[in-house]
Amino acid sequence: MSRIVALETTDIRFPTSLSLDGSDAMNPDPDYSAAYVRIVTSSADGIDGHAFVFTIGRGNDVQVAALDALAGHLVGRELEPLLDDMGATNRELIGDSQLRWLGPEKGVMHMAIGAVVNALWDIKAKRAGLPLWQLLSRMSPEEIVALVDFRYLTNALTPEDALQILRDAEPGRAVREQELLATGFPAYTTSPGWLGYSDEKLARLCREAIADGFGQIKLKVGADLDDDIRRLRVAREVCGPDFPIAIDANQRWEVSEAIAWVNALAEFGIAWIEEPTSPDDVLGHAEIARGVAPVRVATGEHAQNRVIFKQLLQADALAVMQIDAARVGGVNENIANLLLAAKFGVPVCPHAGGVGLCEAVQHLSMFDFVAVSGSLDGRMIEYVDHLHEHFVVPTDVQGGAYRAPLAPGIGMEMKAASRAAYQFGSSDAAA
Amino acid sequence: MSRIVALETTDIRFPTSLSLDGSDAMNPDPDYSAAYVRIVTSSADGIDGHAFVFTIGRGNDVQVAALDALAGHLVGRELEPLLDDMGATNRELIGDSQLRWLGPEKGVMHMAIGAVVNALWDIKAKRAGLPLWQLLSRMSPEEIVALVDFRYLTNALTPEDALQILRDAEPGRAVREQELLATGFPAYTTSPGWLGYSDEKLARLCREAIADGFGQIKLKVGADLDDDIRRLRVAREVCGPDFPIAIDANQRWEVSEAIAWVNALAEFGIAWIEEPTSPDDVLGHAEIARGVAPVRVATGEHAQNRVIFKQLLQADALAVMQIDAARVGGVNENIANLLLAAKFGVPVCPHAGGVGLCEAVQHLSMFDFVAVSGSLDGRMIEYVDHLHEHFVVPTDVQGGAYRAPLAPGIGMEMKAASRAAYQFGSSDAAA
Repeated sequence: MSRIVALETTDIRFPTSLSLDGSDAMNPDPDYSAAYVRIVTSSADGIDGHAFVFTIGRGNDVQVAALDALAGHLVGRELEPLLDDMGATNRELIGDSQLRWLGPEKGVMHMAIGAVVNALWDIKAKRAGLPLWQLLSRMSPEEIVALVDFRYLTNALTPEDALQILRDAEPGRAVREQELLATGFPAYTTSPGWLGYSDEKLARLCREAIADGFGQIKLKVGADLDDDIRRLRVAREVCGPDFPIAIDANQRWEVSEAIAWVNALAEFGIAWIEEPTSPDDVLGHAEIARGVAPVRVATGEHAQNRVIFKQLLQADALAVMQIDAARVGGVNENIANLLLAAKFGVPVCPHAGGVGLCEAVQHLSMFDFVAVSGSLDGRMIEYVDHLHEHFVVPTDVQGGAYRAPLAPGIGMEMKAASRAAYQFGSSDAAA
Repeated sequence: MSRIVALETTDIRFPTSLSLDGSDAMNPDPDYSAAYVRIVTSSADGIDGHAFVFTIGRGNDVQVAALDALAGHLVGRELEPLLDDMGATNRELIGDSQLRWLGPEKGVMHMAIGAVVNALWDIKAKRAGLPLWQLLSRMSPEEIVALVDFRYLTNALTPEDALQILRDAEPGRAVREQELLATGFPAYTTSPGWLGYSDEKLARLCREAIADGFGQIKLKVGADLDDDIRRLRVAREVCGPDFPIAIDANQRWEVSEAIAWVNALAEFGIAWIEEPTSPDDVLGHAEIARGVAPVRVATGEHAQNRVIFKQLLQADALAVMQIDAARVGGVNENIANLLLAAKFGVPVCPHAGGVGLCEAVQHLSMFDFVAVSGSLDGRMIEYVDHLHEHFVVPTDVQGGAYRAPLAPGIGMEMKAASRAAYQFGSSDAAA
């Protein structure tokens, strides 16, 4: 038996705004940041749990304060009962009635709970000697269902529905795991498309993306229609007529504006329009989906919890579901999100990029393929070539595919030297 | 010209869990708390701005950290330009792209921005020598429209729609202000209905509520159906067959459960069912509204922002809209919410109680009556008789009506002695 002895937090900020990497129509100058948590235990095995909330700069200190507020729940507790029933552990943290008032289940407090849940999963996976995707993929359907909080979901997804989905996928698990290990999981890249780049840089990065084997690129749009038309023309010319090009408005538009803008770009062949409007606007997304068809609507990186995903699916408001590893209540809530997508037959193409999001979210897609949806059809994970060097297990993307990580853990552990160098206030960090 | 010299914050917690005041099916042991902000200026007039975010205990420190994170936006700034264009001030704070990532426009960070916006309104109202409701009610329709951020609203409410609503109400303003000053704004009381109370206490408090002139009571439900049937029978016997009794489930139920539970209680005559399920579940509320008709659905105290209210109205998911003074992005966003309700013809009956929420939200309802909806029909403000003694201008409820406050300001200023006595960590505060 061991105990949790500390919940150590760090405010880490990278000065990415200096290069305009990551600039889009809503976020002109992000400093990619991590409100980082490390769970330290009394165990002789030396294993600790690492996770973070991703932010884009200011406010990362508020996110750290929210992580600190969870220490009272965990420090001093016996570790094994928490790890042995991660469903109960997740429900206990999400269910704190006083903390719940700060959301409920959304924003700063919910993301902090998600990070702490993820850090516990990191310990669990490291103890098992398995990467998260493999740990989850080797659980029984019953064990997986027990991880999920079905509160507010049962009018769309019941535990019985979830069990059926998982059982249907069970016979093919071994074959798909071999396929995944052999060929990896498809990736697409956003690297060419940031708003701050010149047309020359856009064209060069498009050529590189195709040469690197990516199956799709994505361009940021929404600041200026004429600019978007020009940039899409450049990208389409470089990529050829059939290569998938998605666009991303980062919540910039009103509903009617989204419909008009996307229709004005449709001639260039749009794989999907991502985040056309407020991430809270389920009915607005549904209206947009009807108004821009056959262009598909994608959203989810800012979907605050499973209740929003449930409604987006119920309302036919999205055709591509984009989970994020650090936005919702951790691995457990993302399993609920994967099961919802499977129930409605919608492909999950996770949001990634930022700092460490690629490293983290690949595990969820790989678990989805092996044990939930059982399909790669229309599935791919976003890839952005930023800041991977700071991670103990950096993503390994080759030939346009994420290679399945084999190192134990959830993939969110940042190198100690990077954590120290980019701690807020140190000389390398964002000002 | 004066400057903002400090944004002073305090973590204030009252030990209300000791008496079970405020206990409901989701919140068994709240410690009513305020993450308090005071804006100090260099002006010789001695006026400072007071506001707070209401929480129920743990996490109040996180909310204070979010207030502190806004100091960089305001300290050192010239005050008059901020106060002269509160629409722009509000949009600037809401629009900080890095802080926005923490929501967007929801949870801890959004509520903090709301409190700071409100504290600025407090200064503006005190400088004008007017209570907030009167300050707003004397603005022109054009000035009021300029306060509203219409982002994400225009498929339901345009600036032109808002202007028309306000112009239609303009001729009757003076008459309604006189009516309000003469008779006050109707109140209902939740005091009898907390789950922790005995049947005897419930019956006694029902009798007192009627004797005090309240036009409606509300009972907490949702923990145990048999208990709810027994308590509603007690209340109905005491109140007589025609007295309005609302019920409040505080988000306890699944959609199907809500429909079945409410229908099982319908024989007792239900004025409205409040917060039947997740506050995020627009489509769920719509399904419940259809399933429990003619019982009306009320919600909104946890609606995170105007985008949720917009959808609840679009989907016919609520019949009573319950704004909260401290949940959304301050006075400005609540003006948007009042305009949305007026556009859809739905009455606003604000959430209050907690600590200081009655003092604050009455201003918004009174403004709604004088200058927006122009109606008292079906409108009333919740009243709970807790903790009013800590405020500089406590609510004055007589004969079941809120008397219109005449003291300058927004009503959220807590007495300095109370702030000191209940500062977290002091001997009187919640542990």
